[in-house]
Amino acid sequence: MSESMKDFIREIPDFPKRGILFRDITPALLDPGAFAAMCDAIHAHCMGMAIDKVAAVESRGFIFASVLAYKMGIGFIPLRKPGKLPAKTIQEKYALEYGEAAIEMHLDAVSAGERILILDDLLATGGTAAAAARLIERQGGIVEELVFLIELTALNGRESLRNRRIFSLMAY
Amino acid sequence: MSESMKDFIREIPDFPKRGILFRDITPALLDPGAFAAMCDAIHAHCMGMAIDKVAAVESRGFIFASVLAYKMGIGFIPLRKPGKLPAKTIQEKYALEYGEAAIEMHLDAVSAGERILILDDLLATGGTAAAAARLIERQGGIVEELVFLIELTALNGRESLRNRRIFSLMAY
Repeated sequence: MSESMKDFIREIPDFPKRGILFRDITPALLDPGAFAAMCDAIHAHCMGMAIDKVAAVESRGFIFASVLAYKMGIGFIPLRKPGKLPAKTIQEKYALEYGEAAIEMHLDAVSAGERILILDDLLATGGTAAAAARLIERQGGIVEELVFLIELTALNGRESLRNRRIFSLMAY
Repeated sequence: MSESMKDFIREIPDFPKRGILFRDITPALLDPGAFAAMCDAIHAHCMGMAIDKVAAVESRGFIFASVLAYKMGIGFIPLRKPGKLPAKTIQEKYALEYGEAAIEMHLDAVSAGERILILDDLLATGGTAAAAARLIERQGGIVEELVFLIELTALNGRESLRNRRIFSLMAY
């Protein structure tokens, strides 16, 4: 199953910069069967969980998280780049190779005790995902699990997410 | 129906700048019933159409378009800000109040003769949607209809989309 899904992930050399081999999910999005298979596999993994909401990292994470939220009948929390969310937000920074970036969440997105699944397309170094988890825990939410479409194992993202439950649909 | 949907759209004054009343969809995303109702209403409107793919404008457009693509069993085309799509792209510019912006589409996203639905969360002046339509038509695609969650009628977006089929779920 996961081998055939990988047929729809395209390799783009030197993107976004020289020396990086980018895993492009857009061929999978264009193919209805591959897209449905990936959505269904994520849903099959999550359907036994008692989760209240899925938090999605902008913007490729939105694509799979919204289908999961719809299929599970749970709420959808957008985690966005600074300045994009219009109401009161909290922010968490994370390190990039050079410099840093940040993501924001609406203050009212999570209530204390809610069980939240975090979904993003890619687990690389884990910086974004760790920041997403901190946002949810600052509001009293419980991070049930982190789910990724693709995991780049060489980058040791699981290290920075130690003690958290992690699921990735495809690993490279 | 559309009145009760509007209960989940929050008004944020002076966002993103002074004098603008922003229509915030995030309360609808947090509520599973409201989110499903909106997804189902868009699907109900589109389900009779012979469309091959849905093209979604980054990034709020992704949320509703991916559920529609999944439910209809069609492909999903991400239209993104410049520099985000990794393979060969084409670009269209559009005017903003001050200056201009652009969106890009992968060259291989549309084949000649394919019927494409465009989905975005908001129809304001129509500049983004018109640029999205031009991208698809440059590749020989047929823009079947433009679908929006919210239409701000005072901004006359339909003017810049003259002769195109337009559907909006909620109008203000």
